[in-house]
Amino acid sequence: MNSTIISRLSHEYLPVFEENLRSIVMDSTAATKLVGQMLHYHMGWGDGLKSESGLGKRIRPLLTLLCTEAAGGHWRKAISIAAAVELIHNFSLIHDDIQDKSSLRRGRPTVWSLWGAEQAINAGDALFAHAHLVLQKEHALSPESKLDVLRLLDEACLSLTEGQAADIEFERKNQVDLDMYMNMIEGKTASLIAVSTELGALVSGASLQQRVCYRDFGYALGVAYQVRDDILGVWGRSSTTGKPTGDDLRARKKTLPIILGLERSDELRALYKQAPQNDAEVETVITVLEETGVLEEVTDIEFDKVEIALQKLSSASPKGVAGDALVALVRQLLGRKC
Amino acid sequence: MNSTIISRLSHEYLPVFEENLRSIVMDSTAATKLVGQMLHYHMGWGDGLKSESGLGKRIRPLLTLLCTEAAGGHWRKAISIAAAVELIHNFSLIHDDIQDKSSLRRGRPTVWSLWGAEQAINAGDALFAHAHLVLQKEHALSPESKLDVLRLLDEACLSLTEGQAADIEFERKNQVDLDMYMNMIEGKTASLIAVSTELGALVSGASLQQRVCYRDFGYALGVAYQVRDDILGVWGRSSTTGKPTGDDLRARKKTLPIILGLERSDELRALYKQAPQNDAEVETVITVLEETGVLEEVTDIEFDKVEIALQKLSSASPKGVAGDALVALVRQLLGRKC
Repeated sequence: MNSTIISRLSHEYLPVFEENLRSIVMDSTAATKLVGQMLHYHMGWGDGLKSESGLGKRIRPLLTLLCTEAAGGHWRKAISIAAAVELIHNFSLIHDDIQDKSSLRRGRPTVWSLWGAEQAINAGDALFAHAHLVLQKEHALSPESKLDVLRLLDEACLSLTEGQAADIEFERKNQVDLDMYMNMIEGKTASLIAVSTELGALVSGASLQQRVCYRDFGYALGVAYQVRDDILGVWGRSSTTGKPTGDDLRARKKTLPIILGLERSDELRALYKQAPQNDAEVETVITVLEETGVLEEVTDIEFDKVEIALQKLSSASPKGVAGDALVALVRQLLGRKC
Repeated sequence: MNSTIISRLSHEYLPVFEENLRSIVMDSTAATKLVGQMLHYHMGWGDGLKSESGLGKRIRPLLTLLCTEAAGGHWRKAISIAAAVELIHNFSLIHDDIQDKSSLRRGRPTVWSLWGAEQAINAGDALFAHAHLVLQKEHALSPESKLDVLRLLDEACLSLTEGQAADIEFERKNQVDLDMYMNMIEGKTASLIAVSTELGALVSGASLQQRVCYRDFGYALGVAYQVRDDILGVWGRSSTTGKPTGDDLRARKKTLPIILGLERSDELRALYKQAPQNDAEVETVITVLEETGVLEEVTDIEFDKVEIALQKLSSASPKGVAGDALVALVRQLLGRKC
């Protein structure tokens, strides 16, 4: 029943959101020129507006629109804000794929793997500029509110960039502990999800106290979401993740299961001195990881964060079906199967 | 005498500007963390605030501050705008150096050559966010003016990115003509210089007509400036440019002298099928280029644009010593020797 609520509201909000996003970005980018082509491709617009296409999950804008309604506003008032959030997310994905040398995203070749890293840097930069411009065209917000929104978004971008830098540094570091990891994912993932939820409250004219609850909700949700992503990066199947199996292991990333596994197992430390080169070596690393019991440990950390997220959401007193949908969405996102 | 005016005003404005810029960026970036270190290095702040250091020429902010005074405002009112312009310029330089694989900038190793392309992408992204945040802290501007400034800057960023994309595409194209080239440098270089001059007029409360004159002035100046840069990219000495001699030739770039040379000379077309590999091969390309007479032709194009820039500036009726300094600055910038 709960998944029905999300489905109903997603179908109400997202097509309007998507059409608005697409028209604003493409109207100010010559579609015949290279930058326009890359953005059109990356955003999944060439595949039509079907959810099973390259569109991505649009989770951050959905959170913004649901939080707007749950905080007492009308979701349409937040449509440009939701667009800005999604564009920032996608700017960071394009650059992230270059940095990680990822060849697949949402089951399709990444921008850099089609056009080269040099041009993909431009595509990300253009989306960053668009994320700002999209708010300029919004007439439902006062100049003061627009500036508040832009400030919160740019602060999140700065955290995101610092988290991204820490993530890349980890690959070269011999030792990374839980604190360093939490700090990194708060920047890389939680800061943008926190601003997605906070901005819904802001645009609804919620009290500062409520805004803080929505932000804290997004923050905890973001951390839980990244931990789940880390689990999927080791145990997720390609058909679920849209990426090759064991992708994070091949890139020798220091994600949470690996950080904890390296602390617990000499065998893993020896194995992980080099990235696994083929499917058999990936399987060996996974088997050793499983013997350390980190999957259960990491799942516990995830569930703790989910509990905090739900408590914070409850403190925000979300209203109506959108409030119910937010609770359901948390459970759905964190139940993502391997 | 004219260069004395520029020197006097630069010494009055730039140290205040630089200190303001440095403190705003570094206060919100942990200097001990990697992103802070990269920005501190790239901006040249580690070298002290001496003009012969890695600081860069700060031409765009100087233009903004001079145009503000010349349009009847006080330069201090534009200090955050000038900071934003310089940060956007530097974000694009960091990404440009990755794209061009340039190892030197202002005579020092580039960010990517020290920290790797992956981290340099983050450094550029962080500067892009800072460029927006720096305006949020400005109290001398109304919310409406701040939004206008942000919009003009983001539109310039979009043009810049599209110009940058065209520039990279040119390397792979067999034929590039003068129109395509002009279109590319209008995006890559002129758009940000045009916004630097226009924003000075905007912050001074100049009429729309005057704003257009200042923008057109910056636009023509930007085109002339890039053409001069192209001349220096072939004939400039390393001690003047801070880059290796014939840098553009080694990267097989399609800059203006080369585009025109390729149109005129079969010998050059044959030679330029591959990038020159050593100093001797670079010299051969330069000799063949000179035989086509393109240096004179390109210099004529530059001088035509300088004339247009000075006419547009004159139509804006710039006031006082700042107005005189602008005229002097145009002549100084475009007189940059090889």
